[in-house]
Amino acid sequence: MNDRPGPRSLALSGGVGGAKLALGLTHAMDPARLMIVANTGDDFEHLGLSICPDLDTLTYTLAGLANAGTGWGRADEGWRFMESLESLGGEKWFRLGDRDLALHVERTRRLATGEPLSRITADICARLGIGAAIIPMSDDPVRTIVETAKGPLPFQHYFVREQCEPEVSGFHFGGANDARPNRTFLKTLKDPALETIVICPSNPFISIDPILALPGVSSALAASAAPRIAVSPIVGGRALKGPTAKMMRELGLPTDAIEIARHYGKLLTGFVLDQTDAALAPAVESLGIDVRVAETVMHSIDDKIALAETVLSFAHDLKR
Amino acid sequence: MNDRPGPRSLALSGGVGGAKLALGLTHAMDPARLMIVANTGDDFEHLGLSICPDLDTLTYTLAGLANAGTGWGRADEGWRFMESLESLGGEKWFRLGDRDLALHVERTRRLATGEPLSRITADICARLGIGAAIIPMSDDPVRTIVETAKGPLPFQHYFVREQCEPEVSGFHFGGANDARPNRTFLKTLKDPALETIVICPSNPFISIDPILALPGVSSALAASAAPRIAVSPIVGGRALKGPTAKMMRELGLPTDAIEIARHYGKLLTGFVLDQTDAALAPAVESLGIDVRVAETVMHSIDDKIALAETVLSFAHDLKR
Repeated sequence: MNDRPGPRSLALSGGVGGAKLALGLTHAMDPARLMIVANTGDDFEHLGLSICPDLDTLTYTLAGLANAGTGWGRADEGWRFMESLESLGGEKWFRLGDRDLALHVERTRRLATGEPLSRITADICARLGIGAAIIPMSDDPVRTIVETAKGPLPFQHYFVREQCEPEVSGFHFGGANDARPNRTFLKTLKDPALETIVICPSNPFISIDPILALPGVSSALAASAAPRIAVSPIVGGRALKGPTAKMMRELGLPTDAIEIARHYGKLLTGFVLDQTDAALAPAVESLGIDVRVAETVMHSIDDKIALAETVLSFAHDLKR
Repeated sequence: MNDRPGPRSLALSGGVGGAKLALGLTHAMDPARLMIVANTGDDFEHLGLSICPDLDTLTYTLAGLANAGTGWGRADEGWRFMESLESLGGEKWFRLGDRDLALHVERTRRLATGEPLSRITADICARLGIGAAIIPMSDDPVRTIVETAKGPLPFQHYFVREQCEPEVSGFHFGGANDARPNRTFLKTLKDPALETIVICPSNPFISIDPILALPGVSSALAASAAPRIAVSPIVGGRALKGPTAKMMRELGLPTDAIEIARHYGKLLTGFVLDQTDAALAPAVESLGIDVRVAETVMHSIDDKIALAETVLSFAHDLKR
């Protein structure tokens, strides 16, 4: 009797940009063979609730519940809770929609009973009919701290409350050294049958690095025989969404896709450049990384599927 | 220099019926001289949130935010949270509206920081512009258990989940023996300048008895020189709302207003009977309790104010 086959593809992802490609992957392959590992470094406790922004963006996106307008939260959202909270003097800088709130309340309740985040996430994904496995990088808390000119800021304070305004000088992933990577994630990463590892077009510093900072992840990734492909989150020297390019400038780094490839370095065997940046291919290749040029800006679902298919066929070619 | 004068009137109240008279009292007298003490025996923890149904009904009613249609919760309420919670497999038997939720989340957050319930309540009432003082009977948890043919049930399980179906044989107020009554409440109760004590038309067994069960409350009430007036929650042998009459039958008690007066006994100096029950006046008077007959069914705000004025003038007459 054979065991159920393990994942064929593993994707590491942050929020919005990563979730777009992850959604494409669920259409471009059997979602039952896809594992998406979510950054939990930007998780935080707010109003007594456990909030996992990247995990939730992935969940809502793959369940078809995401708010396409805002890029975060849920569609058909209401704001009665926030309105009422404000009238009671509650904190209003982090907006929680009436529907979104249900996930935070239910997760917080279950965490308090001792259930691990991974099991709660798996159960919620199953209830929402998500075929792929969405897995938090760890059941242990990791908390990204952004070092800024205003001092160290917890990630959501930097990102939402301060609107990414303070100048960034570095990052610290509190708890990462002692956090155990999710067991299934690590097992999959070490599985010789794994066919593709995708680093989604997420912010490398705050969405992917926290995953790589977990004990054993970088080394297992580097040791994998599977193609290891990153999709550049920088297109034409700009970030499609979020503070990636601003952070690179403040860190004194060139704001181009080459720098993203350099950042991951030996962890990569392949790199997907946007067609706008086709001229950068030789520079990335000089780092010993194969390149594929594609349309990486994902507006429609077709864009997402097309990019996912490009990544998978790139991986297929790299294996030969 | 004089201190700010203490409350002139003290009202003990449960939820809906009590809140109606309390609202009338805020119009019939200076609300700044009114203290309303809320039962917290039906408070409970649900979905990790601290829920205080009677306190909240009083708060919403006096703030003009109550849902007149349901008799509980808030007006202009939304249900996106409940809908979403249900789709995640969360418990759905206790309905929490999107607006209502803000109070539970904010209170739970503040309680977790160590703030006492009374201070949180006072702050929220101030923010909502409530002139009267609404005070939880205690900052310590008291949990009403209903003894039933199905075994002991936590109050909200009996009341909401089981819809008051199981036959009742008694009540237990868990924690009441060790709970300290609110200090301002007890001080007011013992204040010789107090002019009126009103027991609102609430369920005596589950709304008022938990307050009376707190150490020192019954004795201080009995020792007060102020008129002590209850308004009957039973009219024409029926409860206007809730399970009072059903409970009385199951406990083997006559379901009439006389039995309510007998239940409070020596704690009362006055009793307000509905005009429907005018014929019962001699029986109540034979218990040594003065009687006033009035229209006690409160539909409009004018009904509430008229009943409040009747209670206050009755108290004035009793003092002479």
